[in-house]
Amino acid sequence: MEIRRIESPTNQRVIQATKLHKKKGREELGRFIAEGVRLAEMAESYAEVDYVFVTEKCMAGERADTLVKRFLDKEVPVFVVSENILRKVTATDTPQGIAAIVKMRDEAMMSVLGNDGNLACIAVLDGVQDPGNAGTVIRNADAAGCTGVIFLKGSVDPFGDKVVRSSMGSLFTIPVINDVTVCELRDFASEYGIQIFASALDENAEEYFSANLAVPALFVFGNEGSGISSDVLEASDHILYIPMAGHAESLNVSAASAVILFEALKARMK
Amino acid sequence: MEIRRIESPTNQRVIQATKLHKKKGREELGRFIAEGVRLAEMAESYAEVDYVFVTEKCMAGERADTLVKRFLDKEVPVFVVSENILRKVTATDTPQGIAAIVKMRDEAMMSVLGNDGNLACIAVLDGVQDPGNAGTVIRNADAAGCTGVIFLKGSVDPFGDKVVRSSMGSLFTIPVINDVTVCELRDFASEYGIQIFASALDENAEEYFSANLAVPALFVFGNEGSGISSDVLEASDHILYIPMAGHAESLNVSAASAVILFEALKARMK
Repeated sequence: MEIRRIESPTNQRVIQATKLHKKKGREELGRFIAEGVRLAEMAESYAEVDYVFVTEKCMAGERADTLVKRFLDKEVPVFVVSENILRKVTATDTPQGIAAIVKMRDEAMMSVLGNDGNLACIAVLDGVQDPGNAGTVIRNADAAGCTGVIFLKGSVDPFGDKVVRSSMGSLFTIPVINDVTVCELRDFASEYGIQIFASALDENAEEYFSANLAVPALFVFGNEGSGISSDVLEASDHILYIPMAGHAESLNVSAASAVILFEALKARMK
Repeated sequence: MEIRRIESPTNQRVIQATKLHKKKGREELGRFIAEGVRLAEMAESYAEVDYVFVTEKCMAGERADTLVKRFLDKEVPVFVVSENILRKVTATDTPQGIAAIVKMRDEAMMSVLGNDGNLACIAVLDGVQDPGNAGTVIRNADAAGCTGVIFLKGSVDPFGDKVVRSSMGSLFTIPVINDVTVCELRDFASEYGIQIFASALDENAEEYFSANLAVPALFVFGNEGSGISSDVLEASDHILYIPMAGHAESLNVSAASAVILFEALKARMK
């Protein structure tokens, strides 16, 4: 396949891509954007890419050039565009020269169980609003060997630009299920014999290192301000507490998820 | 003390405050900015505030009103300013209505040892550039009961707006020493019998949960891209590795610091 060129900012592919900045557009088109060489590489390796925009300047770099060749080899259309068009597509002032339009997988809830349900270890976001935090939780979950990530309804959209960027590509390598209700979560946990652990700022709760985390588990992390929702707390089998010292009142949700998910990984390694 | 009003954007206090967006200005004036009600409250409780800007709209809120009264009781000058002036002072498009100009403490290196050198637990940033990450490491260090934080030369300035904001006020409650050289760090460690633990992406290094962390310790976290500098690695007594699963190649520095500092806290609690 040959590389092509798009000159017009009103080209259909460009217009389609700009719709992907909004959740509505992403849902309608079943696509999202992965921007920058690193994310586009991850998308090439782990996801289905629909088409790619790249600037000439970016392609002058060896890494991007190699990547573009890999896309073309796979029959993925690649379009050379101006900086201006890429700025429009990525909605950033200083785009990183390449953007892949990625097809969303239509994943079944079961995919978060991994290959062996007995080892299921799933991170759940309950009302997490900050895209940077949400992306970092996905990245932490991947690094800690989680089998999947669930975004409960009311959390930020995992396919938004900033979440994708903060996940550093882990969004492509670990199953992520969106818009799950608390009822669905509870039924899922009960059907597959998975315990729900909610992480809360409650000194009367179980210390995270005293609980047995080496079981099929859903680890829920809440909104920074309001914490875990009452529905989720009710559905939980365990409430975990991270004991703190010093004056800090709480941990950032991405830090809390790192502490608990790596404790779970350690428990599973033993 | 009475509240006063500043109408002119060329008022000396306003001009002085705008200089605090740059490291040079902060160093010359020995001041930095804490923006928003929460940070201003923390500054009121834990730091020495020089003066305060507030908008009328913000003061209409009970929490800000109470805070302003506390400042006035302490003879800290409070100036009512327009949204426009506050925007200029805070360099944000949507300032949070209040900004405290805080005096930097002239802290001796020894302050990071805490009250009992045997329990010294110090987080060290080596070339960390992202202000959000740096602030979160300070917050993690505080929450994990660290006795202090050291920024090595070449890291972002801990008193920059974004670092202060991401620290969520922990910058005020835990001693933070800036611009330390690797030589100074090594000499300090050796003088006070503190072990240096460097966190690195080295699978041959010691697993973080196998090392004895319940000793007087400096925990060094490196730049995300390039990791710990070779000088620091050479000066280190231990190199710690966080075993990872999945596809993620690394952890965000704030996540890595959470994992290691909370493991250290746990070891100290036993």
